[in-house]
Amino acid sequence: MRHIDEETITQAVVESFSSCTNERLRLVVTSLVQHLHAFARDVRLTEEEWFSAIQFLTEAGHITDDKRQEFILLSDTLGLSMLVTALNNRKPRACTETTVLGPFYIEDAPLYDNGADISQGAKGFPCWVKGQVRDIDGHPVAGATMDIWQSDEDGFYDVQYTDIPGPQARARLQTLTNGHFHFRSVLATAYPIPHDGPVGKMLEATGRHPWRPAHLHFLIEAPGFERLITQVFRSDDQYLDSDAVFGVRQTLVANWIQHPPGIAPDGTECSTPFYSLDYDFVLHRTQ
Amino acid sequence: MRHIDEETITQAVVESFSSCTNERLRLVVTSLVQHLHAFARDVRLTEEEWFSAIQFLTEAGHITDDKRQEFILLSDTLGLSMLVTALNNRKPRACTETTVLGPFYIEDAPLYDNGADISQGAKGFPCWVKGQVRDIDGHPVAGATMDIWQSDEDGFYDVQYTDIPGPQARARLQTLTNGHFHFRSVLATAYPIPHDGPVGKMLEATGRHPWRPAHLHFLIEAPGFERLITQVFRSDDQYLDSDAVFGVRQTLVANWIQHPPGIAPDGTECSTPFYSLDYDFVLHRTQ
Repeated sequence: MRHIDEETITQAVVESFSSCTNERLRLVVTSLVQHLHAFARDVRLTEEEWFSAIQFLTEAGHITDDKRQEFILLSDTLGLSMLVTALNNRKPRACTETTVLGPFYIEDAPLYDNGADISQGAKGFPCWVKGQVRDIDGHPVAGATMDIWQSDEDGFYDVQYTDIPGPQARARLQTLTNGHFHFRSVLATAYPIPHDGPVGKMLEATGRHPWRPAHLHFLIEAPGFERLITQVFRSDDQYLDSDAVFGVRQTLVANWIQHPPGIAPDGTECSTPFYSLDYDFVLHRTQ
Repeated sequence: MRHIDEETITQAVVESFSSCTNERLRLVVTSLVQHLHAFARDVRLTEEEWFSAIQFLTEAGHITDDKRQEFILLSDTLGLSMLVTALNNRKPRACTETTVLGPFYIEDAPLYDNGADISQGAKGFPCWVKGQVRDIDGHPVAGATMDIWQSDEDGFYDVQYTDIPGPQARARLQTLTNGHFHFRSVLATAYPIPHDGPVGKMLEATGRHPWRPAHLHFLIEAPGFERLITQVFRSDDQYLDSDAVFGVRQTLVANWIQHPPGIAPDGTECSTPFYSLDYDFVLHRTQ
């Protein structure tokens, strides 16, 4: 401990965890320290760069509140979120793929019946969404709880506004006995992740854009099945191959159909162009 | 980008930096992502662990302000600070070793003349410190600026108090023409790093204590020499071999001499036991 140099420091830190009785925690912190030190050695991190990192983390902490999560944005933009998602959601190809949760999910979204307009005033072209939740053998999953959340036509989620009365384009609903679901909302559009903070500066400095292709978020839970966190992407989006958070999967790309003004899928008259999406989900049984 | 899995995600993120025109930045972020992903893969990081990490960083950010720097504490306790210090301060053995800056340094400390009592009311046994700053050939370094800061007998730095009138046990002074310096302060004592936040929780969960052996901080600058950031440690301290921030070096351990009440080094009468320290510093010329 008194003769530490740039090589022996790593072993000294690892040994400091020798009294840790939580085996898993000891494994994780040991690996973290080894990789963190290997990074610093590989690039010969300078003291100025180290201090920039401290300032970056400090700024990220200070911009983070109950509506903004800069550390999740950081994890997302460095591909860590997608990696952790992939590591923890290995399943048969026939199941719907998992992708990142993102920073805009909130628990206890308002409950709606199928057919409801979940936009609640969110701006955008009307969009009718329907589909079915099934198991891997094709049987419908009845009573699955679906969390749905999305951005409006300006690319903002409800939680990013301070001047709206309540949740918009955010809902929980349950699949019917035949596994089907349907709701009305607005057309999702591409949007930049919040980039007025340190993560935005990192993206700009490294020559990256902050855009995500248009998508709907789904979190689907049903007894006996693994929780599915996923997104469905618009096939005509220009950012499908450069998603700032690496969340796109080819199997999650779907066609939104554009319709002229006329009779909407729910039988009502729609005076503006509108869209429709039909997308099914396949859940993976818990082992 | 649409066919990413737990292996290919890393290359996808690395390629996202291909437009980065700052070569050094590209190298650093590329290495960071490779090591970060290797860590997550090695331990097969779970989603719950990932979320705990997000919460940890969020708490660290929220407890950090202009007086508390949890991210530096984190870097210190994971040995990263000491590693970066070692990587950036390779120099001949005859020079005084560098160690970590710590989170309690502040710029523009009050200026004093040699001989001053820099404690300014800080609690603790009186302590007279003297020494010389030299170059590697033994020549005195005149007019070197020395920043000195330390904790009091309760183990707290002035910046950790809200009820004191100004800086205590914190000073800047300059070496005399013969390279000597001398000042009065209080005896430094061992103290725990601030451990009421997430870093403290990490230390406790991993079976580590938060204590640092008693030490004085020095930051010495002189034209033509590399800046020296170092600490001098008390040889009788029980934490020399388990410093929470891995900062001890054998060459930086010194003997504080205890004296009974009587005539102090500055010729005044001292009615309490007091201490003295004599320690010299050797600066490294800039290349």
